[in-house]
Amino acid sequence: MNDVAAAAGVALKTVSRVVNQEPGVNAATAERVHAAIDLLGYRRNDSARTLRSGRTASIGLVIEDVADPFYSSLSRAVEEVALRHGHLLFTGSSRESPERERELVLAFCARRVDGLIIVPAGQDHGYLEPEFADGIRAVFADRPPGAGCEADAVLCDNVGGARTATAHLVAGGHRRIAFLGDSPTIFTARERLRGHRAALAEAGLPYDEGLVTMGPPDPDRLRADLARLLAAADPPTALVTGNGRFTVDTLRALAALSPAPVRLGAEPYLGGLALVGFDDFEPADLLGITVVAQDPGRMGRTAAELLFGRLSGDEGPARRAEVPTRLIPRGSGELPPA
Amino acid sequence: MNDVAAAAGVALKTVSRVVNQEPGVNAATAERVHAAIDLLGYRRNDSARTLRSGRTASIGLVIEDVADPFYSSLSRAVEEVALRHGHLLFTGSSRESPERERELVLAFCARRVDGLIIVPAGQDHGYLEPEFADGIRAVFADRPPGAGCEADAVLCDNVGGARTATAHLVAGGHRRIAFLGDSPTIFTARERLRGHRAALAEAGLPYDEGLVTMGPPDPDRLRADLARLLAAADPPTALVTGNGRFTVDTLRALAALSPAPVRLGAEPYLGGLALVGFDDFEPADLLGITVVAQDPGRMGRTAAELLFGRLSGDEGPARRAEVPTRLIPRGSGELPPA
Repeated sequence: MNDVAAAAGVALKTVSRVVNQEPGVNAATAERVHAAIDLLGYRRNDSARTLRSGRTASIGLVIEDVADPFYSSLSRAVEEVALRHGHLLFTGSSRESPERERELVLAFCARRVDGLIIVPAGQDHGYLEPEFADGIRAVFADRPPGAGCEADAVLCDNVGGARTATAHLVAGGHRRIAFLGDSPTIFTARERLRGHRAALAEAGLPYDEGLVTMGPPDPDRLRADLARLLAAADPPTALVTGNGRFTVDTLRALAALSPAPVRLGAEPYLGGLALVGFDDFEPADLLGITVVAQDPGRMGRTAAELLFGRLSGDEGPARRAEVPTRLIPRGSGELPPA
Repeated sequence: MNDVAAAAGVALKTVSRVVNQEPGVNAATAERVHAAIDLLGYRRNDSARTLRSGRTASIGLVIEDVADPFYSSLSRAVEEVALRHGHLLFTGSSRESPERERELVLAFCARRVDGLIIVPAGQDHGYLEPEFADGIRAVFADRPPGAGCEADAVLCDNVGGARTATAHLVAGGHRRIAFLGDSPTIFTARERLRGHRAALAEAGLPYDEGLVTMGPPDPDRLRADLARLLAAADPPTALVTGNGRFTVDTLRALAALSPAPVRLGAEPYLGGLALVGFDDFEPADLLGITVVAQDPGRMGRTAAELLFGRLSGDEGPARRAEVPTRLIPRGSGELPPA
């Protein structure tokens, strides 16, 4: 930087102002500094700055899987907010492994990220306490932190959304509604089942465990479960699927089980089975699938804004924000019982 | 670290070995060190290590948009390889802006990433020369570096894939085949058009510019172009769409233009118009869409492995790797001309 200052004929402090994009330097001087930097090949070293300031202007994001459209939309929103605050983003996928979540979080902390946004795979976040004590801030997204960990969380209205899905089918005349969800170890899957049960109870309908199948995504298992459900003496006339991946896998399973070519779109299909999916997905509109849409972009933005609020000194008690859902009727949820 | 060594009753070097996961420490001793670390709240500071070693065990990935399934699959593959090599991943989306690409790349360099994987938005990468001179390594993915920049690149077989798509329709009897592609400023879009033209030439068919529309993704523009194409005196009987987003937008446009409800699946639809999409997408199988599939996972893995080879000292000349494509017939590309 001394060489740059000498070459540009300015004070060292001026070079520092230009490099750090601080105000108080006129355009011509800034251009002279930039020219000197180009000439000398000076490169900013944020590592050195980090050691001095204790801050890195970076945040870490741990999601379940960046290749899942829900999480890639959330990532994009977090990235937008981070960039607007001049922060770069580390990302990592836990793949539902609590160990991997912990490793990623601690690796990000070791790089001295300023803050974290975590979609937790594990249920114990005591390991974060030393990091919190050291000034790192964390916001949880999609799922709350484990017991004993006080931190902000941005959650979807899982109960309300699933209740809406099931109530929509009940209003269409359905009485036997199956629920196909993700593993019950996952918070959102449990909450959505609660919403489904609440809608049944509100309609005075019995809760039949035989109509519920839950487990990690596995197309073969799902197909076997569906075959069993549809072959029963009193089969369901409608399905609620617990997330976008399950909706697509369910449609695939139904296509594989159907003797005739599956006809999707506005007309009745799949033997008249109605379906409402939790989660919108591309291109559910072309498939004519009614969904209760989440808003992963809003979830990511809210989580990131909360985090930057904390980094700006907000020391209030831990907060919960809830992102609403929205029913989008497209035909599959409006079919009457067969 | 001195406090940890004292608390654990071991040498400073032993603490260092445990923290850095080096061999030569027995399990009981390692456990004593970990207990002392927990007790004292010692936290590794990789920033200090970075200044000493000059390496950060991190890489930066610049893609067009993490919310695009092609790039999120590529990201996941890069992340997997990076983690296997003990590296963390910075990610950022350029949104097709050369300025944003440059800002992200230089911000990653300022954090002293060891290497970069870049899906370039810009066509001038001279700005990387000082970084290369400083030891940073870069691999380009999906698109080659701009003129004057020597670096490894992993590209899709764009020409071969598009040639296969068009040749498949020609073999089915089509003579009027429209090509709907992304902006011609994008390398992959130009290459795919070349493949389309090559297949027409090989079949002895004329190249009709009136059957080609290219431009940035914009559903309204695409619908207007399609309406014009289909209303012409000699309309196309088949379409080739230039990427996954264009395929979905085309299907939406055709559904909007069609007077009757669109019937997707195995049967003829959309007035018998045949379609082959470049790029597979979820759930093209349910929509019965024939595609020429790329392999973004393989592209990401190949780029990351090339980069880690460079970081391990491979100083050979810049390389080009090509990822093959694969035709997946699903009905829409096998329809005869109307």
